[in-house]
Amino acid sequence: MTRADRSAGQPEPPEARSPVRLRLRLDLSGQRRIGPGKIDLLEAIADTGSISAAGRAMGMSYRRAWLLVSAMNAMFAEPVVMTAAGGTAGGGATLTPFGARLAAAFRRLEARTMAAAGEELGAFVPELLAEAE
Amino acid sequence: MTRADRSAGQPEPPEARSPVRLRLRLDLSGQRRIGPGKIDLLEAIADTGSISAAGRAMGMSYRRAWLLVSAMNAMFAEPVVMTAAGGTAGGGATLTPFGARLAAAFRRLEARTMAAAGEELGAFVPELLAEAE
Repeated sequence: MTRADRSAGQPEPPEARSPVRLRLRLDLSGQRRIGPGKIDLLEAIADTGSISAAGRAMGMSYRRAWLLVSAMNAMFAEPVVMTAAGGTAGGGATLTPFGARLAAAFRRLEARTMAAAGEELGAFVPELLAEAE
Repeated sequence: MTRADRSAGQPEPPEARSPVRLRLRLDLSGQRRIGPGKIDLLEAIADTGSISAAGRAMGMSYRRAWLLVSAMNAMFAEPVVMTAAGGTAGGGATLTPFGARLAAAFRRLEARTMAAAGEELGAFVPELLAEAE
């Protein structure tokens, strides 16, 4: 994934306009999860160079953004985000190559799943009622 | 999907043994969702012929199972489950052909997504730590 792949600060998935939005979540052992929210955050850190700015762009508190990053860094033998010397609050943050590969792989999987969903479930979309009655 | 595809009363997905479990959820408009839990329930109804027995097999109350079925029936122009004349409590229930097609399509999508996940994310599995520290 390169930064040019994404419109800055607007990590909206391409399927948002469809009547059906698909969410892919990976459940690891011990309540650990990776889903589109954490990947959105990684991409926002790549775009903004900062955990706090990434959190702001996604409408979440710095504390919540930091906790999500911390949880991801504790999942793998390699960190996904590195913070500059000087502390996490103001020194800037960047994806590691490992973190960038993880985010890109998740997005490729999402795109493949969306394509498969169109084939497998497209026939059901015309049967969808507009809203629960 | 035929009944023979599934071991009766044990709707355990094949990926349960892996360190990574994948969950696919479809978000429709108006808080309506279709995910593996609702599809498990449809398959349990197909297996048991009854909403209450299906709920029991899944460890949920009859009320919760009935609400989930009711929510699915309200999503589409066609029902996914039909109950026999005599009421929902004791008369038995069966998937409609539409409901059976929906469940089968969801499972095909899950299987395709699992295969894609193995390709896209398999390289990250050896990097997974055993547990949050």
